[in-house]
Amino acid sequence: MIHVKTYVRVRYSEVDKMSYVYHGHYVEYLEIGRTECFRSLELPYAQVENQGIMMPVTELNCTYLKAARYDDFLTVNTYLKSLSLGARMHFYYEIYNENSDLLCKATTVLAFVSEANRQAVRCPDFIYQKLKPHFSSVL
Amino acid sequence: MIHVKTYVRVRYSEVDKMSYVYHGHYVEYLEIGRTECFRSLELPYAQVENQGIMMPVTELNCTYLKAARYDDFLTVNTYLKSLSLGARMHFYYEIYNENSDLLCKATTVLAFVSEANRQAVRCPDFIYQKLKPHFSSVL
Amino acid sequence: MIHVKTYVRVRYSEVDKMSYVYHGHYVEYLEIGRTECFRSLELPYAQVENQGIMMPVTELNCTYLKAARYDDFLTVNTYLKSLSLGARMHFYYEIYNENSDLLCKATTVLAFVSEANRQAVRCPDFIYQKLKPHFSSVL
Amino acid sequence: MIHVKTYVRVRYSEVDKMSYVYHGHYVEYLEIGRTECFRSLELPYAQVENQGIMMPVTELNCTYLKAARYDDFLTVNTYLKSLSLGARMHFYYEIYNENSDLLCKATTVLAFVSEANRQAVRCPDFIYQKLKPHFSSVL
Repeated sequence: MIHVKTYVRVRYSEVDKMSYVYHGHYVEYLEIGRTECFRSLELPYAQVENQGIMMPVTELNCTYLKAARYDDFLTVNTYLKSLSLGARMHFYYEIYNENSDLLCKATTVLAFVSEANRQAVRCPDFIYQKLKPHFSSVL
Repeated sequence: MIHVKTYVRVRYSEVDKMSYVYHGHYVEYLEIGRTECFRSLELPYAQVENQGIMMPVTELNCTYLKAARYDDFLTVNTYLKSLSLGARMHFYYEIYNENSDLLCKATTVLAFVSEANRQAVRCPDFIYQKLKPHFSSVL
Repeated sequence: MIHVKTYVRVRYSEVDKMSYVYHGHYVEYLEIGRTECFRSLELPYAQVENQGIMMPVTELNCTYLKAARYDDFLTVNTYLKSLSLGARMHFYYEIYNENSDLLCKATTVLAFVSEANRQAVRCPDFIYQKLKPHFSSVL
Repeated sequence: MIHVKTYVRVRYSEVDKMSYVYHGHYVEYLEIGRTECFRSLELPYAQVENQGIMMPVTELNCTYLKAARYDDFLTVNTYLKSLSLGARMHFYYEIYNENSDLLCKATTVLAFVSEANRQAVRCPDFIYQKLKPHFSSVL
């Protein structure tokens, strides 16, 4: 399993008139978690795209348990729980505030797509090799 | 059942470097669908808040099937499929482009919360009365 | 002179904890004004990009006079006041609410950039020809 | 003079189809600079609002010199150049990338507004006292 912690400070622009972080902005927090997860694998996502692979999100599920507020300092936990040679990558997330309240649980599924022809592809080897050392078995 | 159609033109600011609408912006399209669904019930959401009720999103699920692109003119279909006296309201959505391609299927769950004390409440009567004529039975 | 009116409904996601539209979202309203200004010239901006020309904003000035609020229905007035063969295009904007209150005055300057080499270029002829009939003289 | 440096990592969601940071997102980077400027004065902006003072932006001017790109690590320099007892606060900004390229120069003017009656007020004393030690004279 891979587990990466990242930190996000809530921006004023992200808070709605209920004084809560607008639920749509969690999508960006998840993206930040994913970005730092890739970086921790010594594979910055910018390099993935430079190699001609795009990873659009094909599924997003969020459960909101408690609201984040302006200037909160959040911890984004990002998990890769299994290794697969397939065409999708599954991420799990938990977002906490400074009081260790769990604010949001989420999952995203990302596809591998060739930038050249915009067709789905299986997990490219240069990504698989970075993931492999972190898992004992392949799905 | 309630079914409302709304239309959204994709903004330049909503498109990412893959030339696709960033997946997080669909959250706003769903919100627009919900807003117009409330308006069609002669209950603009601004009035809901004026009556001291807030409706934060507690759950969000999106499946992305095909990408939207800059300047696409999208149709957001918003559905309320059942009537409930409980503390939650379930919305279903389908977003299509001009070629009638289904781009996104989504569901959201919203809670009723009293603005005064930020506690969850059951469906307020002034909302229930607007919903009731559209359903033959109550869950 | 060219003058185009466009209409924007304020989204819930655009309103901050002051219950005002976050000032950054006016940038998107200006972009919508510009988009519809191009469309009115029978030159949708997507076609401009399809011809290999990008138009990044190089200067932005906004004066905020009065706040917009959730669900306000805004009128965006977009103006092109002069015709130029140079490397920049100047837009002027005024945004009003339904009570005809002037909320925001703004200007933007956009450059013409070749997508191929990302170098600035002078106003391309296919754009100039669309603009010309609307002006009696060239700057 | 007050000068505060803050750092921002460009998010994927902030980059447009030109592969440049959408110009509207700089507004959020300026806001982050301002937020950290207030924090450095031992006056977190959340405390300003808790004391019943809101500070809406009344003027925004940005000059974009060079594009930021996905995953760039930006330095936001925020400056307060003079002390005033008046109803406005002027901030200056310069944003650089990791190559020390100046990407954006900006200014914002903020008003002091009483949350209670939404009327403009002069610089409240609790803010003035935090600013004063950093300036030798008052405008």
